[in-house]
Amino acid sequence: MSTLEQIDSYIEANLERWFGELGQLCAVPSVAAQNRGIAECAQLVHELLVARGLSSEIVPTAGNPVVLAEGAGRSGRRLLFYNHYDVQPAEPLELWESPAFELARRGDQLFARGVADDKGEFISRLAAIDAVQAITGGLPCGVTFLVEGEEEISSPNLPGFIAENAERLKADACLWEFGTVNYEGAPVLFLGLRGICYVEFSVKTAEIDAHSGLAGSIFPNAAWRLTWALNSIKGPDGRVRIPGFYDNIVPPTARDLDLLTALPDESEKYRQTYGVTSFLNGMSGGPEFRREEVFVPTCTICGLDSGYQGPGSKTVLPAQAKAKMDFRLVPDQDPEDIVAKLRKHLQAEGFGDVEVTYLGGGRAARTDPDDPFIQMVIRKASEVYDKPTQVWPMVGGSGPNYPFTHHLKVPIATVGSGYPGAQAHAPNENMRIPDFVRTVKHLARIVLGMGGN
Amino acid sequence: MSTLEQIDSYIEANLERWFGELGQLCAVPSVAAQNRGIAECAQLVHELLVARGLSSEIVPTAGNPVVLAEGAGRSGRRLLFYNHYDVQPAEPLELWESPAFELARRGDQLFARGVADDKGEFISRLAAIDAVQAITGGLPCGVTFLVEGEEEISSPNLPGFIAENAERLKADACLWEFGTVNYEGAPVLFLGLRGICYVEFSVKTAEIDAHSGLAGSIFPNAAWRLTWALNSIKGPDGRVRIPGFYDNIVPPTARDLDLLTALPDESEKYRQTYGVTSFLNGMSGGPEFRREEVFVPTCTICGLDSGYQGPGSKTVLPAQAKAKMDFRLVPDQDPEDIVAKLRKHLQAEGFGDVEVTYLGGGRAARTDPDDPFIQMVIRKASEVYDKPTQVWPMVGGSGPNYPFTHHLKVPIATVGSGYPGAQAHAPNENMRIPDFVRTVKHLARIVLGMGGN
Repeated sequence: MSTLEQIDSYIEANLERWFGELGQLCAVPSVAAQNRGIAECAQLVHELLVARGLSSEIVPTAGNPVVLAEGAGRSGRRLLFYNHYDVQPAEPLELWESPAFELARRGDQLFARGVADDKGEFISRLAAIDAVQAITGGLPCGVTFLVEGEEEISSPNLPGFIAENAERLKADACLWEFGTVNYEGAPVLFLGLRGICYVEFSVKTAEIDAHSGLAGSIFPNAAWRLTWALNSIKGPDGRVRIPGFYDNIVPPTARDLDLLTALPDESEKYRQTYGVTSFLNGMSGGPEFRREEVFVPTCTICGLDSGYQGPGSKTVLPAQAKAKMDFRLVPDQDPEDIVAKLRKHLQAEGFGDVEVTYLGGGRAARTDPDDPFIQMVIRKASEVYDKPTQVWPMVGGSGPNYPFTHHLKVPIATVGSGYPGAQAHAPNENMRIPDFVRTVKHLARIVLGMGGN
Repeated sequence: MSTLEQIDSYIEANLERWFGELGQLCAVPSVAAQNRGIAECAQLVHELLVARGLSSEIVPTAGNPVVLAEGAGRSGRRLLFYNHYDVQPAEPLELWESPAFELARRGDQLFARGVADDKGEFISRLAAIDAVQAITGGLPCGVTFLVEGEEEISSPNLPGFIAENAERLKADACLWEFGTVNYEGAPVLFLGLRGICYVEFSVKTAEIDAHSGLAGSIFPNAAWRLTWALNSIKGPDGRVRIPGFYDNIVPPTARDLDLLTALPDESEKYRQTYGVTSFLNGMSGGPEFRREEVFVPTCTICGLDSGYQGPGSKTVLPAQAKAKMDFRLVPDQDPEDIVAKLRKHLQAEGFGDVEVTYLGGGRAARTDPDDPFIQMVIRKASEVYDKPTQVWPMVGGSGPNYPFTHHLKVPIATVGSGYPGAQAHAPNENMRIPDFVRTVKHLARIVLGMGGN
């Protein structure tokens, strides 16, 4: 058997061991937004890295600790793996078919909060390291693991951590925390991520709720104040009304639009997966849909909360109201600039009573599709997947790639086990086992490729 | 001792017995909106009425049963007591200083959900009957008790019940389910109640929530749809934008405005009780404030519910959003007409995707301030209270008085133990014991007055 055949056999033979480790990881409810299970999960990640012979350290930050691990390789080149051990909240719990924090296997799928985003991806990288080390007796390139615990709350401390540890994190290339196949099973490379700006709105008009009969005509109503303030931010036409919001936007290039045009139309798949009956602005797929999907900044209400929400009627005038909102940003929008403009806008519109709390954010960043590392990743994918890699110049989601491209100057590739039905951030988050197997094989080949093979 | 002195002594000597009965009633969580404790509470009300020697019956309706009880009197006149045994939801439970469904005494106050609205009022009427029967050996007038179980969900079945049982409910006068003193301790007569129209809005844009990074630019967002639909109903100027909403409004008369002008300015007390920092439209008390408070219809968001509401950030695009709203109506607005206009408005504004559920309502109704029964109630109050009765031609709250004035043609007086700090519909609902004592004394005198004394 060739080295590659031996590696592939090893991978197929060791799945249950890795799923055991994945089950341990998923059992820790490391929900950053709820400050649960963080220290325990960091410790477990550390132990899993140490078990691979890497020198690992749990590094404190102002927020959740970063697990940082390094291993030497035969070549002078170094591959940086970026992952995160925190997960999204599991609510609404009643929509899960099995408990959110217990890894469950049904058919060839594994279910749990974090199984896809991002604990399964982390395990796939350990698996690739295991396979390469077991078969080749060592590592062909140096590896660095950066596993943070605040990705799902917009990585507030990661940019500073990367800036401060830029020398130690030095690498020739980076594998991002996620990767996916598309609806047809083709591997997808996302070469840019939108930025994000996450805010919470809070309005308080009184100390206590009042009887709506007494107060309806005379007291301000926190829920109405919030509704009007939100409406001032974006109207039914979808256009963000914050002055200057669309400043500093770098439009997509002709190369970007060509890459988008080459992508398959997946709008019908979105319809089926999410049960969306219609898309915004009457869109129905095609290049314009893709351009809208990734090169247009968004303004999304993520939550509304005020007054009585139980069954039936309660005649109450709420003293408080809250909303959560994220903006997805494109190059070169800056989240702190957006928050400043948002606050100024609310003040100017008469909503100075609506308090804005900035919960975190980061800028958009991109990698050149013609970078040699990206080209190597695409070549290696062709050995594992029977469909050619789809290259997205940018994608709708966000992540802290800006500090990596800005401070570390690394090209970034997205290689992972995701698929469009993974339901990341939603109930019944899942990973398909065949996707995991192919990802580990691809990752092992990339590690070999970094060593010149 | 005179008869009145004996009655007053009896009342003062028997408080603990009535508070024992009140404790039993408050222990039953008869929350109509949540369909809890209804049958049990109706049975308990029935037993309390039977214990007074009244012939009582639990009468089924399409919704919660009505407890109907009658007793004969020495005169041919009859007094109808209207009360309700259902209560508002107790949420948010964490803001209660003692458990919501356990009667607690702190100083001269009693605390529990329903202690003020309306179980305490019901007990005060039984207490008055007890005192008059004990001291005079019978009842000077016939009495009828109508105790319903759906007042807090807008009494959907009461109008039909009254129409069908109009003959049996025939009476010369009616005492309403509530009554109060004002901030200065003066008894207050509310001679009209606003109508109400309670609706729930529901929007569903997909089957499942989506990742806001994927979907932000391309999927409709239920929370945004709801926000925009609500904004189309009422804007920051407070004006309801539903076409025809202000049709059919009967403006207040000069007599109404004179009565309002005679009322004390309580705006500063509202400020203190509710912690409101400013009133709507820059108002700060005075006759215009009173007119706004009672003769202007309202549109109040009572609750908002969508997406993630927990701590921190969750980057989700919600598939569903809900809101609750009440409209307080003035004569001669009709709740079903308002719902029809609301639905038509949403359709016309492009919000046909926002489903409107009508949860119940009723019209406003008023009693003539110069009715002889009202004048008698005011005279009797002067024997118990050291401040003259304040007469409101109408009040902001609602209740099903329209079927009483429409089908039974009775004058209605509001006599009860409320006070402005009672926190009806809010946590820590309470009643002051001295208010209860004065109310029972006043009620006993009204019963005697119905017999010609």
